[in-house]
Amino acid sequence: MPSGNYRDVLGGAATYSSVAASLLAPVRIVGVVGSDFPEATLADLRARGIDTEGVERVDGKSFRWHGKYSQDLMSRESLDTQLGVFASFKPKLPASYKSSPFVLLGNIHPTLQCDVVGQVHKPKLVAADTMNFWIGGEPAALAEMLKRIDLLIINDEEARQLSGIHNLVRAAADIRKRGPSRLIIKRGEFGALLFDDGGTFFVPAFPLEDVYDPTGAGDSFAGGLLGYLARHGDASPRAMRRAMFFASALGSFCVEDIGPKRLLAIGKHDLSARIDAFCRLVDYGGELSFAV
Amino acid sequence: MPSGNYRDVLGGAATYSSVAASLLAPVRIVGVVGSDFPEATLADLRARGIDTEGVERVDGKSFRWHGKYSQDLMSRESLDTQLGVFASFKPKLPASYKSSPFVLLGNIHPTLQCDVVGQVHKPKLVAADTMNFWIGGEPAALAEMLKRIDLLIINDEEARQLSGIHNLVRAAADIRKRGPSRLIIKRGEFGALLFDDGGTFFVPAFPLEDVYDPTGAGDSFAGGLLGYLARHGDASPRAMRRAMFFASALGSFCVEDIGPKRLLAIGKHDLSARIDAFCRLVDYGGELSFAV
Repeated sequence: MPSGNYRDVLGGAATYSSVAASLLAPVRIVGVVGSDFPEATLADLRARGIDTEGVERVDGKSFRWHGKYSQDLMSRESLDTQLGVFASFKPKLPASYKSSPFVLLGNIHPTLQCDVVGQVHKPKLVAADTMNFWIGGEPAALAEMLKRIDLLIINDEEARQLSGIHNLVRAAADIRKRGPSRLIIKRGEFGALLFDDGGTFFVPAFPLEDVYDPTGAGDSFAGGLLGYLARHGDASPRAMRRAMFFASALGSFCVEDIGPKRLLAIGKHDLSARIDAFCRLVDYGGELSFAV
Repeated sequence: MPSGNYRDVLGGAATYSSVAASLLAPVRIVGVVGSDFPEATLADLRARGIDTEGVERVDGKSFRWHGKYSQDLMSRESLDTQLGVFASFKPKLPASYKSSPFVLLGNIHPTLQCDVVGQVHKPKLVAADTMNFWIGGEPAALAEMLKRIDLLIINDEEARQLSGIHNLVRAAADIRKRGPSRLIIKRGEFGALLFDDGGTFFVPAFPLEDVYDPTGAGDSFAGGLLGYLARHGDASPRAMRRAMFFASALGSFCVEDIGPKRLLAIGKHDLSARIDAFCRLVDYGGELSFAV
């Protein structure tokens, strides 16, 4: 298992998810950075076709997180979180963003997530991330947010906390009754489950020889998912299932190096090759049935 | 999460795996029971078409295990193990068994597993189970056994212990060099991985609403796998991949009730329905590729 100390690694859900999605579709990001944030980084994102008009630059320090991962990379501890300019962030969509058909709400206060939904004109699909902090601390605002979205993307522990139900199949049914018609439960190296009107669907995580840094894997997953849906302009159950492979593929690249380094290095050929490898991973040779 | 105390539940790897396999192919079992073992139980197995000629009845008590599962059913503690007549068990194959093309070696001393392999005439595929007890305590005998088999079926912790490597992709490559050309790594509720000359393949566990008792799930998995291969007389990579679904399906039935109760209750129609549900769980709508 690799280990090391890494400082000043570019992070943020918007970075991971937009870089992942940019391999598949045009991306527009909304966010806030402090006066310390390098302009070159935003220029790098723009060079990938990512629209950064919605990124506000504000006097003060950028958000910073410092933490420690366990040896097996399965859990992490926050050592220091400095909100900086993020503390007073109120996302405001530029006029050119308002017709975006596919919207991913990053993990911010659920009331702010609702504000963003209110700024978009008839999107095809609104997806949201959230976390234990809001589930425990802002249940009413979160309940409101759930009613405004089409897809919730959370991990297994969050699904259990949100529903109060340990079994994930039952937890999923409970959460879907609260608003989102589609739910994805991520299980890290164990893959992800999709629950929607098409039933239940599972995509594995890609078995890797080297896993360096799980930071951003979930955001890359979400970016890959939305990128695929946006590329095809389709949010049907079939498109969702196919998008799950792109989501898992982008998540798998993310963990192969520190921060977004690997994500920034890969091109469409790498993604294409991994999608092929994914298909081999689950290919059981066509129709399978058991004639009684 | 269900909980309870259950005593005198019929167990044994041979029971779970033979009952699972019997839905798919004729099965012959080898084993030993004490004078306390009810003849009616063996009659029940025979009524399912399971050949029990290889089951020896010996004066003394049958093997008994008494243990406790954690609340989430993910780990267990042995409270009492009484080997009974199992202590001096030396498997001996009846003449009618010696031409069996598919052989599953249960979790016994690796030297005894080798003895069984020596008694079979040119089998198509020999699979074996083992556990941490032999990996730690009998490394030389285990190394010998690995050279005699085609397929090893173990769980993730056993794969790590056997190889001394944490990463499962690397652990698998290491283990396959020691003998078995095929390796299956089971991950409980997280599915199972197959490593063979066809590459890497993954089958999920079936997402269930009710999980009662994980005892025997691994044995049911192995039984389902070998049953499918035997049914088709095929041990090719394609057959192995398809067999993985039957393995996981039989494992999923097993956990739905206490002991082998559910396995004994299901019929071919139930299995057929679950295989269909499994296919839906992984169906992503045909060919998937990403044109660059």
